[in-house]
Amino acid sequence: MPTAGEITSARAAAVVAATRLAKRSFRTRDRRFLAEGPQAVREALGCPGTVSALFVTAEAADRHPELVAAAGGAPVHRVSGQVMDALAQTTTPQGVVAVCGFLDVGLDTVVAAAPHLVVLLAQVRDPGNAGTVIRTADAAGAQAVLLSRGCVDVYNAKCVRAGAGSMFHLPISVDIEVSEAVAELRGAGTRVLAADGAGPVDLDELADSGGLAGPTAWIFGNEAWGLPAAVTEAADEVVRVPIHGRAESLNLATAAAVCLYASARAQRRPMPKG
Amino acid sequence: MPTAGEITSARAAAVVAATRLAKRSFRTRDRRFLAEGPQAVREALGCPGTVSALFVTAEAADRHPELVAAAGGAPVHRVSGQVMDALAQTTTPQGVVAVCGFLDVGLDTVVAAAPHLVVLLAQVRDPGNAGTVIRTADAAGAQAVLLSRGCVDVYNAKCVRAGAGSMFHLPISVDIEVSEAVAELRGAGTRVLAADGAGPVDLDELADSGGLAGPTAWIFGNEAWGLPAAVTEAADEVVRVPIHGRAESLNLATAAAVCLYASARAQRRPMPKG
Repeated sequence: MPTAGEITSARAAAVVAATRLAKRSFRTRDRRFLAEGPQAVREALGCPGTVSALFVTAEAADRHPELVAAAGGAPVHRVSGQVMDALAQTTTPQGVVAVCGFLDVGLDTVVAAAPHLVVLLAQVRDPGNAGTVIRTADAAGAQAVLLSRGCVDVYNAKCVRAGAGSMFHLPISVDIEVSEAVAELRGAGTRVLAADGAGPVDLDELADSGGLAGPTAWIFGNEAWGLPAAVTEAADEVVRVPIHGRAESLNLATAAAVCLYASARAQRRPMPKG
Repeated sequence: MPTAGEITSARAAAVVAATRLAKRSFRTRDRRFLAEGPQAVREALGCPGTVSALFVTAEAADRHPELVAAAGGAPVHRVSGQVMDALAQTTTPQGVVAVCGFLDVGLDTVVAAAPHLVVLLAQVRDPGNAGTVIRTADAAGAQAVLLSRGCVDVYNAKCVRAGAGSMFHLPISVDIEVSEAVAELRGAGTRVLAADGAGPVDLDELADSGGLAGPTAWIFGNEAWGLPAAVTEAADEVVRVPIHGRAESLNLATAAAVCLYASARAQRRPMPKG
């Protein structure tokens, strides 16, 4: 296990190479991003070949020896609290940051795996929302998350944090052309459902009619303006989560949770007889 | 409709009386809070007697004449953009802020209404989470949201904003003693379910067995430490949202969405025969 003496300057080469990954332009150039905190770092270390460097404070190394032990061939840099403050993007850093290689795979890889549940985010701009949907998709057993062109950068620190490690669990695909993804998924036998608060099809009725039982891709749109007409027209169904009370709508992440869990349930349960 | 000349100083008495409501101590003293933005203000104006003053910029008054028209007996203060910046708690204010009276009702009022779906938040600290759950509870047709002692202040600006107007739609009760609420709700024939990622009862299995069909109260706990043993022991069932993938857990608001929509569905659909 490679280690080094404690780095106390934020100008050390390894630190500079990592801190600049806070900027999207450097992430794109280096095809690397930062995962912060023990949970995300643990999940990153669980993906062979993903972590290229690990930064830990002495305190965090004492608290999480298993993370340092799991670093494998990646260099482990001991850093001072001040250097950790420069590396971390949270106000109260937890003392461990990993430099990770990009995870995204091509659309063809996702389609070839014949997934039974896929999420496609179209122009989702808020990193917290995107990360939360990735976490929820993972929990609901989805097998991939696709992000369209115009979505927030999935490697943004807030998105990584909201994802709570789930982006290391399931394939992610980025810069997706929505119409192309819809065509490919449908060609592979996947039913494409667009979620829209004004959709003509009620989620519960769709579940009752068996419409959620087969392979399904869910498309969720932008927080403010929803899905463009071209997307809803291309989908097999435009589905609304029923609003039983007086709320105008659900927010993106909660609507996605209800839709994905409805699919997860329908795919795992036999239809009632009659 | 009372109006006034444009206020251009943030030191004007009406403005001072409103801006100080950004602090919890003043909210508690005055039993008033601020609702910001056209959506929240519209919903507030829909609750008779709730709005005691309305602040609008000239631009917002032009864009939303219906809000000014709906002010009823409440004074409408035209304010400059600078004064609006002082009143608003968002970085890009939408030009309209209402001073609202506290909305919370007593636990006895909630129980007496024999609600079929109730949410109890226990020690939920994040205002965005609390507001999102209130919005989701409204959407799922819940008839009240109770907040325990130790929860975030429901009148906090971030909570009001995340609630998207739903706090004006359904009764809210605050400073609830959880054990007292559980006893009273159960005494009224309500089944009390505690949501816990490690709970022994699977949500889907509970739905299949008919366990969600009757009047139900859901308890959701703190973001970090969940529910204390005293609460899970007092509940009728401790229920987990199934994790089908590798995510460690769902976040509070998405877990609540899945649970509440499972209840909404079960309460509206006949059980399958056989």
